[in-house]
This record gives sequence, structure tokens and C-alpha cells, in this order.
Amino acid sequence: MRTQIGIIGAGPAGLMLAHLLQRKGIESVIIESRSRMEIERTIRAGVLEQMTVDLLNETGVGERMMKKGIFHEGIEIRYNGKRRRIDMHHLTGGKYVTIYPQHEVIKDLIAARINAGGKMFFNVSDVCLSGLDTAKPNISYLNESGEKEEIICDYIAGCDGFHSPSRQSIPAEIRKEYQKIYPYSWLGILAEAPPSAPELVYAHHEDGFALHSTRTPEIQRLYLQVNPEDSIDDWPDERIWEKLRLRLSTEDEWTLIEGPVIQKNIVPMRSFICDPMQYGRLFLAGDSAHIVPPTGAKGLNLAMADVQILAGALFDYYASGETGRLERYSEICLRRVWKAERFSWYMTSLLHRHRDYTPFDYQIQLAELDHVTTSKAAAQSLSENYVGLPLEFEEQPLSVI
Amino acid sequence: MRTQIGIIGAGPAGLMLAHLLQRKGIESVIIESRSRMEIERTIRAGVLEQMTVDLLNETGVGERMMKKGIFHEGIEIRYNGKRRRIDMHHLTGGKYVTIYPQHEVIKDLIAARINAGGKMFFNVSDVCLSGLDTAKPNISYLNESGEKEEIICDYIAGCDGFHSPSRQSIPAEIRKEYQKIYPYSWLGILAEAPPSAPELVYAHHEDGFALHSTRTPEIQRLYLQVNPEDSIDDWPDERIWEKLRLRLSTEDEWTLIEGPVIQKNIVPMRSFICDPMQYGRLFLAGDSAHIVPPTGAKGLNLAMADVQILAGALFDYYASGETGRLERYSEICLRRVWKAERFSWYMTSLLHRHRDYTPFDYQIQLAELDHVTTSKAAAQSLSENYVGLPLEFEEQPLSVI
Repeated sequence: MRTQIGIIGAGPAGLMLAHLLQRKGIESVIIESRSRMEIERTIRAGVLEQMTVDLLNETGVGERMMKKGIFHEGIEIRYNGKRRRIDMHHLTGGKYVTIYPQHEVIKDLIAARINAGGKMFFNVSDVCLSGLDTAKPNISYLNESGEKEEIICDYIAGCDGFHSPSRQSIPAEIRKEYQKIYPYSWLGILAEAPPSAPELVYAHHEDGFALHSTRTPEIQRLYLQVNPEDSIDDWPDERIWEKLRLRLSTEDEWTLIEGPVIQKNIVPMRSFICDPMQYGRLFLAGDSAHIVPPTGAKGLNLAMADVQILAGALFDYYASGETGRLERYSEICLRRVWKAERFSWYMTSLLHRHRDYTPFDYQIQLAELDHVTTSKAAAQSLSENYVGLPLEFEEQPLSVI
Repeated sequence: MRTQIGIIGAGPAGLMLAHLLQRKGIESVIIESRSRMEIERTIRAGVLEQMTVDLLNETGVGERMMKKGIFHEGIEIRYNGKRRRIDMHHLTGGKYVTIYPQHEVIKDLIAARINAGGKMFFNVSDVCLSGLDTAKPNISYLNESGEKEEIICDYIAGCDGFHSPSRQSIPAEIRKEYQKIYPYSWLGILAEAPPSAPELVYAHHEDGFALHSTRTPEIQRLYLQVNPEDSIDDWPDERIWEKLRLRLSTEDEWTLIEGPVIQKNIVPMRSFICDPMQYGRLFLAGDSAHIVPPTGAKGLNLAMADVQILAGALFDYYASGETGRLERYSEICLRRVWKAERFSWYMTSLLHRHRDYTPFDYQIQLAELDHVTTSKAAAQSLSENYVGLPLEFEEQPLSVI
């Protein structure tokens, strides 16, 4: 097979990249190791930055999101029994926090691929990249019938997630990997119940972190900090509700509305960055290049930002032969990635209970929570990062000497 | 001896308290274990918050400071070879960073005490507090001739520093102490040289933190992060200059002006808070109640804030018998203290090289440095804390639910 851009992975990064390229008349092929049903059903993130919402709308795949999405103007932070609200809409000049699950975004993007007659192959295996430092890189794989296939292309986009074969194709000696494993995990549930709060609730509690999020008026998404060695069997529904009630409790009257738990899973918490995000004619995008802990709601949004930058750079190349932005792809992305990594690390460190924290560390968390909910400047700094930073920025220090 | 307020310690807290009380017609006696010469010569902090400057001026002891002090509109932050400036004057609606050494403040306050005929006894020993939970607490001590003396008073102010006998008089079972010892110390020098930069320079460097501060146009104060087990003998002058040149170096041309080192010392880095700051008729102020690492330049300023609050509360009592503010002294102070502790911990964690830091942790520091020097909201949040928060505040969240 011959195409312009070979895309490995049909997650949000790979699907959005194919969508953006097709709109610019650039041809691509996506291969994916999972089935279409699996990727359309896997429960993941659910908070979209304003820029992601704008991108979906501007490229014609935002219709269902605008109908089914939920638009919040702020978030609530609870600590020490207090309830504080950060009015992000006001603090960022009118931006929203949009709740629309990642697997719904995937459904919309797959539908757009099918409508456009885009090539997607699911259930592939044994993916292998070669010729990355030549003008004709290629991807070989076994198709769903077990037959060997090959895609010869101009460029390859590695959108294949954290366990990415693409990233492994970058020689180890030029690949620098940064990582932090947090000493806790998130237990997430879907519950059939109406929302208990009008906006997302981030709760700091001596017993551990909890998050009350929403999916639809009928289904809520709730999270609990748990020990990394816990298994789902350690968490019968009654124990989950008991901890959610405790950690979300406030000084004043507030009731958590409970309901049947229809799904539960435990996810580890990790920060990870691969530098560079490119090698020869291979470009990494999304989770294959970087992982954030979910506290900052940045994973999906970073993937969307990467592929916007990549699509723009590829368009430059096909329109005029200009490779300047392709060459700077990693540098442009990583500047933004590190800002999101910092923010995700900050939100995670701020809100979780660490086993080895001293009473001083705990009081510092409370002082920081007090700071971000009482200082307008601090709340604004948090809000700007939460609703999302600009796509591309040169370094613009406030003041250089 | 009989007085209204017995003050233990002639540091900035004790001296300023006596000064404020005298201006309200309240009598006090200060006792101090060191000699006058020693306290007037000990090199300590040198950065005054705007509120401290205003307090010295408003109470008639600011004349020398206004002549000899140095008024900066911002600070410089260096990292990764970059030079970035935070324009605090602009970001805080016109406040200054004022450089005027603590021992000069002490000289001014002692002169004011002497002018007012205030009672001060130096070189005392064996200080002992009793009757704190009675209406007539008393302080016994040996005077400089070794004779036993006693002060019977209405209230006692424990302004006797970190190794405070006063704090030890609060029963251990009601006293909660929070502490963090940092895994590094500061080596400080005074050098006879002109300033190498127009404002304070805080430098983050892979080799460790450095700070370029000033004292006078002829004498500069410079600091280096060193290992906590280092002794002054490990640091001959040439090694100090070599490390200062390295850590303060920038991408562009910049020269550190060197000169004879006329003083050097090593200070440990600690965060410490005692809660409550009062017991019966004893009130702690300044270092006896809390210690901050020097990175945020908050130690002296917190002491000044404590005694302003205490003097106001004592004036309420003597003017009208009202004890409401005295009873809430600890609560009012600690709200502000924890904010300053948070800020000092933040500045310290941001700028120092930790021995056990991973490459990820190091990159997060760089990302945070990038954040506070490129986001106006983040720079404003830092500036508001650096120039100093208001004296007293009720909790005023931006938004309560």
C-alpha cells in the first residue's frame, strides 16, 4: 500500500490527524491493534479544553458534542469541610470547561472517517516500522486475517499510546525519557444517578482525594484515590460509596446521590515525557510521547494539540515543500507539553494524600488550597491552565533583562 | 519590678512591640540574653516588605532606612542561562522591594527605646516564666551581675527566637509543632565590591541555588546553596567565587564583580510553626513561633506583622477592657503565617537543587520557572506574596458555594 501519511493508532490523536489531513487534501491510512468496538467503548477522559471544543466544531465534528456535552463555567474545590468555587469562565475571559467523554469524540471521528472514505484497518498485529531515516519509511503489520501487509509512506505518525511500538523505534541513545510514578491510583466508577453537584468537585481530604464528575444527567463519573496495589476486588460498591461520602463531605448540608455502579476500574498515575517526539520521518503524538496523571484533565487535550501542530507542519510541506515546522515539531510540542505536565503534577500533588506526608506537608497543601481559592491572581493562573493554553507560543517572557 | 508587658527578647519583634506599645502609652520591659553589641552586629535578613517599611515610617523610626535603604521595583530570576525579570512594582499596584539590613532596623529601634526612656536589660540569663494562666504572670531571671530579678506583669510577649524558653512554657500537650528540615544550607558572604546587578538575582542552576543581593553600593551580600554537613572550612573564598560565577552565569555576557570577603557564615534551612502562638497570658511573636527558610525573605516581616497584631490587641484591652482580639491573636497570626510559610516553602522548593531529584523533578522546576516568568497571573501571585500580604484578613474566598 502507498499513502502520504501512515498513522499508527486510532485513538483521538490518530483519528483527528487523519481528519485534519483529509480536509487539507492529504491522504492517510490508519492501522489499529484493537477492534473498532473496543475503542468506541473504552471509558477514558471526559473534560475538553476550549481549544479542543473549538477544533471539533471548526472541522465539522462537533455536532453531537454541542448537543450532548455539558458546559461548565467553573469547578468546585473542597478541603477542610469548605466549599470554594473557581469561576474559570470569568477568570479566562469567557472560556468553558466542557464535559464530553473521549469515547464519544472517538465515535464522532470514526464516523467522519467513514463518511470521507478514509482508510482504517482494525485488529492489526506485529506492527513494525522501518526506513525512518530514509525518504520512504514503511510500516509492516499483520492484518486481521493474519496476512502480512506493508504501507510505504512519506511520513509516519506514531499515535499508538503509551505502550507505543513507534516510540521504541526511536534509537535509545537519542531518546530521553522522563518519568514519575505516583504512590496512588484512581478508582473510577460510572453510577446511574443524577448529578449531586452542578459542576466538577475536586475534594482534598485527610482520607484521600475524591472527584465528582458527570457524564450525562443520568450517569455520573466518580473517582477515589486508592493504593496502587489495590485490586478492584478490594472495593465492593458499599466501600466505594462510604469513602465518597466521607471525602466529599462538607461543613454544611450536602448529599451525595447514590445509584447502581455500572462500571469500575483502577488506573495508575504516571507522568511521562519522551524527548524528542520525532526521529527522521517519524512523529509521535499523544500518549505515545507523553502521559499526564488525570487530575489536570490534560491527556486528550494534549493529543489534540500535538496533531494540530503536526497537521499544520505537514500541510506546509505538501503546499510548498517547506520543512521548517516539521523540523521544529518536537520543540514546539514539548514547550506546551511541559507546561501541561507541570500543571498536571501540580494539581495531583496539591490534591492527593501522600502516605509519607508529614503534618507540615499536609498543612502546606491546605495553605496552597487556601491560596488558589482566595488570591485572584493564583485562581487565574490555575484557570488559564485548566481551560487550556494557546496552541503554539514562542517564549514570551513578561520581562527580559 | 512591675510593668504592664514583659517582653522576652530584643530582636526586631521585641523591640518593635515595645516601640508600638510606648506610642499607645503602654509600659513594657525588655530582657535579652545577648549583649547590645552582639544584636546590633549579627548579620541577618535584609529584605523588607512594603508593610514593614510603612510601619517603620509611620512610627517615626524610618529616617535612616529612607536614606540608606535601596528600593527595587522587581527581582531577577535566572535559570537555564536565561535572565527574566519580575516587575513587582507594576504587578502589585506600586509596591517596592526594600533592601535594608535587619541589624540596622535593630539599631534604629534600640535608639528609639533609649530616646523614649524604655527599660531594656541585656546579658540576662536563667529566664523562667510562671503564672501564665493567672492574672499576674511573672518572669524571673539573673541580671548581668548574676542577681535574681523578677518582673510581674499583665501579659508576657515571648519574642525570644527559635530556641525560645517562652515557647517551651506552653504545655507540650496543647502545643502542636510543624517542621521541615531542608536537605541543604545557605552559605552567605559579605563582599567589598560594587553590585553586579541592579536588583536581587535568584539563580536556579544544576549545580545549586545562588542569590546575589546587596547591602550598600560598596558591600554585596551573596548566598550559595551548600550541603548541610559542610563547614565554613570547606569553603575557601576562591571556591565560593567559582561557584557564584558558575551558578549566576547567563547565556549572554554578564560579569560578577568580585572583592574581598569580609564575613561568611552557613545557615541551615528550616520551616517551623508552633500552634497555638498563645497560652494564658503568654503571646509568642516572630521566630519563637515560626521559622521560614530565607528564600522568601519573610522572617523579619512576619515578626513585624505579629507584633503589630499583638500591639493592637493589647491596646484594645487597655483602652476598653476588650479581650476579643487578644483571644483570637493566634488564629489571626497563623492565617498569615501559613501563607508566608507556603510561599517560603514554594520559593525554596522551586529554586534549590535537591540531591534526590530525578530528571523529571528538575524539568518540573524549569517548567515552573518558565510559568512564573511568562504568565502574568502567576507572576502577580508570586509578587503579591513577595512584597507582602495584608496584615489581617478574614477568609475572603473568591467564591463560596
